[in-house]
Amino acid sequence: MARHIMTLRSDDRPGIVAAVSSALLEVSANIVENQQYSDEGTDLFFMRTVFDAEQADVERVVAAIESSSAVHNHDLQVRPEAERCRTLVLVSRFDHCLLDLLHRWRSGDLPIDIVGVVGNHDDCRALVEYFGLPFSVIAVTPETKADAEAQLLAMVEEKGVELVVLARYMQILSDGLCRALEGRAINIHHSFLPGFKGAKPYHQAHDRGVKLVGASAHYVTADLDEGPIIEQDVVRVTHAESPSRLVALGRDVERRVLSRAVRDHADRRVFLAGRRTIVF
Amino acid sequence: MARHIMTLRSDDRPGIVAAVSSALLEVSANIVENQQYSDEGTDLFFMRTVFDAEQADVERVVAAIESSSAVHNHDLQVRPEAERCRTLVLVSRFDHCLLDLLHRWRSGDLPIDIVGVVGNHDDCRALVEYFGLPFSVIAVTPETKADAEAQLLAMVEEKGVELVVLARYMQILSDGLCRALEGRAINIHHSFLPGFKGAKPYHQAHDRGVKLVGASAHYVTADLDEGPIIEQDVVRVTHAESPSRLVALGRDVERRVLSRAVRDHADRRVFLAGRRTIVF
Amino acid sequence: MARHIMTLRSDDRPGIVAAVSSALLEVSANIVENQQYSDEGTDLFFMRTVFDAEQADVERVVAAIESSSAVHNHDLQVRPEAERCRTLVLVSRFDHCLLDLLHRWRSGDLPIDIVGVVGNHDDCRALVEYFGLPFSVIAVTPETKADAEAQLLAMVEEKGVELVVLARYMQILSDGLCRALEGRAINIHHSFLPGFKGAKPYHQAHDRGVKLVGASAHYVTADLDEGPIIEQDVVRVTHAESPSRLVALGRDVERRVLSRAVRDHADRRVFLAGRRTIVF
Amino acid sequence: MARHIMTLRSDDRPGIVAAVSSALLEVSANIVENQQYSDEGTDLFFMRTVFDAEQADVERVVAAIESSSAVHNHDLQVRPEAERCRTLVLVSRFDHCLLDLLHRWRSGDLPIDIVGVVGNHDDCRALVEYFGLPFSVIAVTPETKADAEAQLLAMVEEKGVELVVLARYMQILSDGLCRALEGRAINIHHSFLPGFKGAKPYHQAHDRGVKLVGASAHYVTADLDEGPIIEQDVVRVTHAESPSRLVALGRDVERRVLSRAVRDHADRRVFLAGRRTIVF
Repeated sequence: MARHIMTLRSDDRPGIVAAVSSALLEVSANIVENQQYSDEGTDLFFMRTVFDAEQADVERVVAAIESSSAVHNHDLQVRPEAERCRTLVLVSRFDHCLLDLLHRWRSGDLPIDIVGVVGNHDDCRALVEYFGLPFSVIAVTPETKADAEAQLLAMVEEKGVELVVLARYMQILSDGLCRALEGRAINIHHSFLPGFKGAKPYHQAHDRGVKLVGASAHYVTADLDEGPIIEQDVVRVTHAESPSRLVALGRDVERRVLSRAVRDHADRRVFLAGRRTIVF
Repeated sequence: MARHIMTLRSDDRPGIVAAVSSALLEVSANIVENQQYSDEGTDLFFMRTVFDAEQADVERVVAAIESSSAVHNHDLQVRPEAERCRTLVLVSRFDHCLLDLLHRWRSGDLPIDIVGVVGNHDDCRALVEYFGLPFSVIAVTPETKADAEAQLLAMVEEKGVELVVLARYMQILSDGLCRALEGRAINIHHSFLPGFKGAKPYHQAHDRGVKLVGASAHYVTADLDEGPIIEQDVVRVTHAESPSRLVALGRDVERRVLSRAVRDHADRRVFLAGRRTIVF
Repeated sequence: MARHIMTLRSDDRPGIVAAVSSALLEVSANIVENQQYSDEGTDLFFMRTVFDAEQADVERVVAAIESSSAVHNHDLQVRPEAERCRTLVLVSRFDHCLLDLLHRWRSGDLPIDIVGVVGNHDDCRALVEYFGLPFSVIAVTPETKADAEAQLLAMVEEKGVELVVLARYMQILSDGLCRALEGRAINIHHSFLPGFKGAKPYHQAHDRGVKLVGASAHYVTADLDEGPIIEQDVVRVTHAESPSRLVALGRDVERRVLSRAVRDHADRRVFLAGRRTIVF
Repeated sequence: MARHIMTLRSDDRPGIVAAVSSALLEVSANIVENQQYSDEGTDLFFMRTVFDAEQADVERVVAAIESSSAVHNHDLQVRPEAERCRTLVLVSRFDHCLLDLLHRWRSGDLPIDIVGVVGNHDDCRALVEYFGLPFSVIAVTPETKADAEAQLLAMVEEKGVELVVLARYMQILSDGLCRALEGRAINIHHSFLPGFKGAKPYHQAHDRGVKLVGASAHYVTADLDEGPIIEQDVVRVTHAESPSRLVALGRDVERRVLSRAVRDHADRRVFLAGRRTIVF
């Protein structure tokens, strides 16, 4: 028996849980974990089920659920828990989020396989190579941006990338690339959303005299900083913190928030529901 | 259709979820919320399901589940969500936890009916009566303790009390009373458990120079302060806080923690699993 | 010897601390607590000193400091710690912040004297009168607004009010009243600032799918919700929380944040520095 | 002018602040930051002052303060802020705390110079060498323990080490070494103190069903886990977290707490006051 993660999004109709649980019972699968949620706003039903079953039986389970009259306009996926999420990390010069991801990956905290790291600068090469991973530079200038994005997308396809993590990648993706990566690209925004938008949020926070600064991890969408939020956190600050100290404190929040969001995504815990996310 | 909360504890066997969801589907009940957990340590299965169904169908649901071969040594309960948890509050002289419970009760935050408040002193009478609730004094001295507890237990039975809340009730219950109220009496301990036990925990915390003080809400058991923990929280403190200031800060944590525990219990979210609780 | 709180704001010049500490030493005052801060942005110096001294010596201390060449464009105030901050509370219909202030006032947590509570509705009368305090209604309509504010201001002067607390007072003060109360009126904003502004912030938060909701206490200024922030806090929420549950969770944050801000102000810990506050 | 940090511990007598501020004014030093605290329990006075002054004037300042009749049984130290705290890190096999320290050191977050890392195993060599720092192994067995500690102490003296950080160093120091390093060795304890002591605290936490797990950074003393606490923090957990997941969550708290404690120590913000610490 191998452990599997099933995720299901469907129109919300009666009988879905019965259909799923009967299909699993039929093959003597053992349910280990189960979460579900009916979203009133979108009238959608979301379910995440972890179960132990013979690999050979998974197809029967899927077929049984899909043949049920309870599921409609649905998206059903099952994958072995052992199959880790193939991840590509994008960076610029700051390495704090990158380092956190690499360390958690190596220590087994994150159920991902990092297939590579791409920077628009060369700064993070040594760090990535120390962790034994391939690093490539795809420089981006206004002239080369279209080419650079095409290169990036080609790499995503070639390497079977399931998740792109923008770990303080200081480039704005084009609308086209945002659409191509919809629901599988996570950005870390160095502010509590909604909040200070645009440039230098920590300086804005200092000028405004806030008592907390935060960070938000969200899916990338064409609408800058308006993508569905996956995770957020804050840290308490005082009047005595300079803007540069706020930046340093913010770095801690950013890496913590981004790593949690990546973990939740890779564990198949995050579902899109319009502008919101469901996080089990 | 009325909303119901079903709670189920059973030996952990395959087919429980299928049995429950089929029984609900059979009567066209609509599942609103569902949580489940298989506890490896005790090999027990826990489930909480909120569903909308005709009142008349509930008995059929219960019968169908109980006739399933999947449930063993189980405890199955269904009650209308609208039926609030009948609660008795015990106090001594401190009124901060009591006030918080009364205010949340009145503002509709807590799904409880407070059937009365009992003090071993008269101090809280005016407060309770301002909220329009009956207050009675059952004084406790070494000589009267057995009588006082008998009186208390009689009141619990007479008024159909489902939950007893010790809101900084400064009396230690006898082993007999603890057993009689097992799983339905919640105490707030003015310390982070495990931690400073016994008298004056905030003074102990000050002497030890801790940087956080906390509080724990737990079910009452004969083994003092060792009951299953329902909720805990802490607050940050510094060297500059005097013991009396720690007490004041602790009061905030105590009332917050106790109210959350009462809410979870009244919402039927808390299950006992040996020395631990499962809180959905 | 009586305990005093001295607050000093001055242009930032060398020698201020020496001037203050020498003046205190001269009369054998004992410094109990001292905080100071030089704000680079405004080039202002802020100091708060708690000391024990004979009442008769305080004037000498003040005169000595004011005669020093180190203090410029300064604001120096000394008052006995025992002299509590005369406070007027404004409310509408929601009573959670009001109740928290009243309870903390009665239990000695807040160093304030509540001289009265004014509502634009009668809803909170019973609560206020239970606590033995005077409650008056000053209704506000577009037609009566100017009169109502004049009445309010008259009450502030008559009763020697030093602090006005808007405890979820659902009226926008006129620019004139804001100016008249500058630096001595605290509002609780039911959102994390900057954040959702205007109406129904918890509904906006739900639609945006945020993972934290917060509240901010700030001084009232003519520029709505842009007053200097004194205190902020947040609480973690999930997708499963309905807007009305967010409102309930928000209430807890609001009352906590407002009470802390009132306490800091009444303890003379808060200084205005442009758009920011210094909070010792 | 160079920035300096002055720390002063003295019997608590009147006139200390006046003595210090006059001495600084005399040489036209500019006070940038100042904190002070009178500890009632020990009757000690603590002060930390950051000031800008000519290097040549520092000796005069020290002499002036020491000649004052206000300071008694005192410890007065002044050092340039630019002079970073010479730090030696001890590790075993876990590298999460080590990595955090190394990364913060390199990014300038921590005002320390890491003079080297010593492991009782070779596991962390590659990581340390990637950061360009010397790594040495001093193996410890019951037979070699005395020798190993002598070697360690020799290294501390030779390299002028001011701070020893036990970054999950899985060896108990002898009483002699504890005494030799008193006030300059910081340990991270993988539990909230007081709390679960001894082995496998996260497993104990799981068995007890706690809702928060924590970590504590403290000075090393001969009395195991009873050293003065510098910093503590917690993270919220649920029944669903396995012991190994608690360990992973705990790692995050450990590294955060240890880094903060090291930062505070290196910034000269931590003073010993009996069993407690004063942290400015």
